[in-house]
Amino acid sequence: MLIGKKRKLGRKINEIQPGEKLEFTETIEDKDLLLYLGLSNDNNPLFIQHDYASLTPYKKPIVPQVMVIGMITSAVSKYLPGPGSSVLKTDLSFPNPVYHYEKLSFYLEVQEVKKDKHTIGISVSVLNPDGKTVAEGRLEVCPPYPPKPITTRTMENF
Amino acid sequence: MLIGKKRKLGRKINEIQPGEKLEFTETIEDKDLLLYLGLSNDNNPLFIQHDYASLTPYKKPIVPQVMVIGMITSAVSKYLPGPGSSVLKTDLSFPNPVYHYEKLSFYLEVQEVKKDKHTIGISVSVLNPDGKTVAEGRLEVCPPYPPKPITTRTMENF
Repeated sequence: MLIGKKRKLGRKINEIQPGEKLEFTETIEDKDLLLYLGLSNDNNPLFIQHDYASLTPYKKPIVPQVMVIGMITSAVSKYLPGPGSSVLKTDLSFPNPVYHYEKLSFYLEVQEVKKDKHTIGISVSVLNPDGKTVAEGRLEVCPPYPPKPITTRTMENF
Repeated sequence: MLIGKKRKLGRKINEIQPGEKLEFTETIEDKDLLLYLGLSNDNNPLFIQHDYASLTPYKKPIVPQVMVIGMITSAVSKYLPGPGSSVLKTDLSFPNPVYHYEKLSFYLEVQEVKKDKHTIGISVSVLNPDGKTVAEGRLEVCPPYPPKPITTRTMENF
């Protein structure tokens, strides 16, 4: 829980190896899409209006790309490397649209570990139910820092 | 309103010129941050736990980078070029963290208009109150399609 004191941190940079993978599926429900649009105060008809979308090359309302980015970055935050992680770079392209209620398959893989810079590179690929790529690219992530004990900081003053 | 039939579309590709700019400021309130964390089911202590964050190089809880991406992409969706737009690519880096309640300044500028591909390139720069860059990079965006009249589609069958 958010307010609990106990928490599990993700893996530290020394515990991460290139080749580590994370795969998961996620379905974008209308509830989540509406919460996002409310949060961002965004009423883009392409995301919600069937009549407008049907008259464009998209044919049907699409999911805002940032929601797909949100699923990717929260997977980093939750699992790879996990809690305490911070995203430093997102190079992502969205070659095909995501439609409402589609079940997406996410594939993340650690490509490189730069201990000197305290960053890791993660490749990202997201497929729709037809096997078409809806997002692909690369993230640069700062893995969790081990908390520095308060006593260490105190001792630094001596 | 979302459910209203009347709507304003953003500017079409023929109406967009390189050099067009959008500037705005936005403050990330804790309410928005908590809504986002609830939506993504993300309890990364770096975003919310003062005691953990104080023991890392960040010193204080930071704002998830995807919330900054959300502010950028909803500005595209709302204003530049506006409703009907779709984001095709995000190349963004986050060289400095954003702290809770910071007022951020956003600068977007159309860099190129590719009529043949129906895309525009937009440069992005986001500064914190100290003038430090917290996000920078480039978006590729598909401007709104004018709705194709139903009669046109019907006639195509002949």
